[in-house]
Amino acid sequence: MSTVRSVYDRLCVLLRRSHHFSGVNAIMQYDQQVFMPAGAASVRASQLELIAGFLHDLNTDPEFKTLFDSIDSFGPESVEKELTAYESAVIREARIKYRKHTSIPKNVEEERAKLESEGYDAWVRAKKAKDFSIFAPNLEKNLQMARTLASYMEPEKAQVNAYDVWIDQFERGLTQARLDPILKEIRTAVVPLLEKVLAARKNMDNSFAEVLSGTFDVEKLRKANEEIVKRLGFDFENGRMDASPHPFTTSSSPHDVRITTRYRADEWLQSITGSIHEAGHAFYEQNLKPTGLPVDEYLSMGIHESQSLFWERMVGLSNQFWKFAAPIVRDVGGVPLKLDTESEFADLMKAINDVNPNFIRVESDELTYVMHILMRYEFEAQMLAGTMKISELPQRWNAQIKDYLGLEVTDDAVGCLQDVHWSSPFVGYFPTYLLGAMNAAQIFAAVKRDIPDVMEKVEKGEFAVIKEWLTNKIHTHGTFYPSADELLTHATGEPMNPKYFIAYLREKYCAMYNIDPSTL
Amino acid sequence: MSTVRSVYDRLCVLLRRSHHFSGVNAIMQYDQQVFMPAGAASVRASQLELIAGFLHDLNTDPEFKTLFDSIDSFGPESVEKELTAYESAVIREARIKYRKHTSIPKNVEEERAKLESEGYDAWVRAKKAKDFSIFAPNLEKNLQMARTLASYMEPEKAQVNAYDVWIDQFERGLTQARLDPILKEIRTAVVPLLEKVLAARKNMDNSFAEVLSGTFDVEKLRKANEEIVKRLGFDFENGRMDASPHPFTTSSSPHDVRITTRYRADEWLQSITGSIHEAGHAFYEQNLKPTGLPVDEYLSMGIHESQSLFWERMVGLSNQFWKFAAPIVRDVGGVPLKLDTESEFADLMKAINDVNPNFIRVESDELTYVMHILMRYEFEAQMLAGTMKISELPQRWNAQIKDYLGLEVTDDAVGCLQDVHWSSPFVGYFPTYLLGAMNAAQIFAAVKRDIPDVMEKVEKGEFAVIKEWLTNKIHTHGTFYPSADELLTHATGEPMNPKYFIAYLREKYCAMYNIDPSTL
Repeated sequence: MSTVRSVYDRLCVLLRRSHHFSGVNAIMQYDQQVFMPAGAASVRASQLELIAGFLHDLNTDPEFKTLFDSIDSFGPESVEKELTAYESAVIREARIKYRKHTSIPKNVEEERAKLESEGYDAWVRAKKAKDFSIFAPNLEKNLQMARTLASYMEPEKAQVNAYDVWIDQFERGLTQARLDPILKEIRTAVVPLLEKVLAARKNMDNSFAEVLSGTFDVEKLRKANEEIVKRLGFDFENGRMDASPHPFTTSSSPHDVRITTRYRADEWLQSITGSIHEAGHAFYEQNLKPTGLPVDEYLSMGIHESQSLFWERMVGLSNQFWKFAAPIVRDVGGVPLKLDTESEFADLMKAINDVNPNFIRVESDELTYVMHILMRYEFEAQMLAGTMKISELPQRWNAQIKDYLGLEVTDDAVGCLQDVHWSSPFVGYFPTYLLGAMNAAQIFAAVKRDIPDVMEKVEKGEFAVIKEWLTNKIHTHGTFYPSADELLTHATGEPMNPKYFIAYLREKYCAMYNIDPSTL
Repeated sequence: MSTVRSVYDRLCVLLRRSHHFSGVNAIMQYDQQVFMPAGAASVRASQLELIAGFLHDLNTDPEFKTLFDSIDSFGPESVEKELTAYESAVIREARIKYRKHTSIPKNVEEERAKLESEGYDAWVRAKKAKDFSIFAPNLEKNLQMARTLASYMEPEKAQVNAYDVWIDQFERGLTQARLDPILKEIRTAVVPLLEKVLAARKNMDNSFAEVLSGTFDVEKLRKANEEIVKRLGFDFENGRMDASPHPFTTSSSPHDVRITTRYRADEWLQSITGSIHEAGHAFYEQNLKPTGLPVDEYLSMGIHESQSLFWERMVGLSNQFWKFAAPIVRDVGGVPLKLDTESEFADLMKAINDVNPNFIRVESDELTYVMHILMRYEFEAQMLAGTMKISELPQRWNAQIKDYLGLEVTDDAVGCLQDVHWSSPFVGYFPTYLLGAMNAAQIFAAVKRDIPDVMEKVEKGEFAVIKEWLTNKIHTHGTFYPSADELLTHATGEPMNPKYFIAYLREKYCAMYNIDPSTL
């Protein structure tokens, strides 16, 4: 005779099985990117396909449906009586996952996979030829598929707004109605600030940037990076660190979180910022509760990115951080930094915080990055809604870059073809980068309120208290609070609010470029 | 309407699926031993358990039975007409595998796993307490289970001789009737040789051994090891090399073969011999045909070990090899070897080839190692047959070590408890170590016959011709020749023959210790 408790327990068995097998997939993917010899590529593809098949079987096991039906048959009162709020959240998350895994019919899923593969190929070819028109038909098909997929994922919502279905995939609980005024507020503040900064920058001596380049010993840089992430609090008992062409984080479980960074022999900063960024992601993954249940997974891409950017920017761009880190870069990393005078240190900080408008999003600083996201969001939302022609993308892109950053885009490869995202049939991911930056600033304001001497601790390399704050307020809650607004209300006292991000940018860049804030 | 061809093709699909998923298991195991952070141990156990379950499902898929029945229904003539000898071998090997995977009932398999786990725990406790009596009841149960398992694996053979069933698991096609005279011939030759060697050794100045120890830079040693295995022919496009406490080889496919060695800061030779040994295993795995079919897997443990020992001993203990390798150890490895005079080089060779009787099998040289295997084989065969009491093991062990090596065993931990093997319910593995050494000598004799200037090539670091010989004669045949006798007949012109091993030992050690061969 089954009880609410016995059904719940059985559900947990199924959920943990999926979780552990997802972890196998994570390790095999990490291995592919970091350790695998080149000759094994095609064998690995077959292996990953088998894993995907088994994972699909686990995630779509019909027993889930039986268990959910059982729970329904008990009625909400007895479920509420028998289970804790946490356990109810487990069931809620399990239902969401199961719906995600079973909502797309097999033939549509196969078509999606086909479009993704064709889209990627076309994108690579178009980028190589620097010609958007080669990719345009694929983008058209991808957007159509994105609409189709949305209609399977959430039929009712999709009828009103397919973009809302997609953004919810990456940023739980978010809608365009909530997002648009946030982005508008940011745009309104950043556009004039950026204008002033770019104007001020024209007359500056930029020789300070030379401090970043030279010829470095990668093995020593590696040791400095390890030392820094270790001091920040990366747990090497439950994780490891390697090198790869693009830094990334992979979690197989909170007990096995792996990060990479990239090393160059001619520039040292990128390895450090990569390490700090990925360490921020890793802290989130390492400090989720290791239950194997979906309520203890990360909440959203925007929250994940807030954790990496908290460390990379709020901590990692600060004077105090570099008072701590620069000697490690010099002494362990073998970088001949001059740190004896205030002006030498100031030059280092200028180089690290330099605003440098770039065609390329991923090479942009935190200020100009904002504009890259704003325009991508507008374009993809409008293209999905059908209010912007796909063929117009290149000229609108180039005009926007000219308007925002004052740059002339030379070709589509460094313009609207630079990002891989649209080669797949989905939209809604780009805003999460900006939400991450915004949330990081809001969280930082709350940390400073709760720990007034936080930056003195940073200068002394005492990061434990910050990490503890983030763990208690953010990490350990997983998806229990099922939206960024709810989680941030718990953590900071209010839902997402762009004012902290705006204040952070204004304060920092007005000081850096001697801009009078009252003129903004 | 199915044909022999269509059934064969479908069988290949199933076999490749199993092969690829075995490869996933291999990578996850390698990761566990080489890359995994310590905190992930228990999660990894759950992950490996899931993988084992899926692998079991693939390997015992009832469709195999259906396909075999189809093939039977076509009759042997039409199968022979439709399929090549290679394809028929695929079917033969598939049947053997399927029988292996399905012969043990589930409850027996669970009991086996339980005994293995309990046996390991008891062995660890007994070894720590240096007291065989703690482990004796487990050994009793393990041997009983080994008999039971044999009766499921091959009921008829097991009724006559359970040991034959077991040895066939590790050394395809071998029986005690074939093995016993081989081992007797080896014992008869080695016992008097070893006596003379040990007598001669007593009066020797052993200061040459100092050349192996010192304080070394592990990073430089790593580079020297990589250089050496690369020059030997290890294919880094289809493999990689790492460090681990115990050297081993893992193959996920011929395109992804991974080896490890161990590094110490106070001794340099172990890393090199470990690397060469594992490279020998790796050459076998890298040069199996990458078909994903069981006919292209390694034949037996003895043949696998012949490949590692061919390189470790036949090549890697030779003067000519060290003429090539010693400068790399010195120049890349940072080991201050003196190689200027003949006598300095001779001292190095003495250190590398030193005979040094040791209680411990895995720390023994190639000559005394023989005795370790002979006694283990006798004991386990007799205990399985019930002709030796388990309680007698320690005193018989110690007496044999005294007799063969002139050493007094101080306690069971360095005596009959030193090896992990008997903590599991199987026997029959130990002989394959000695067969590997023996087959390596036989193969080496054939290589010298076919390539008369082989050792001059070794001295010049030209290993390609040797590797090609081994690939063409051994590796590429997988299990097509289904016993070591058949494979060696193909490769060397005759079945397993101990005379080459005996001649090799006599010639080498008589020269080293100035022993008159006619006195043996």
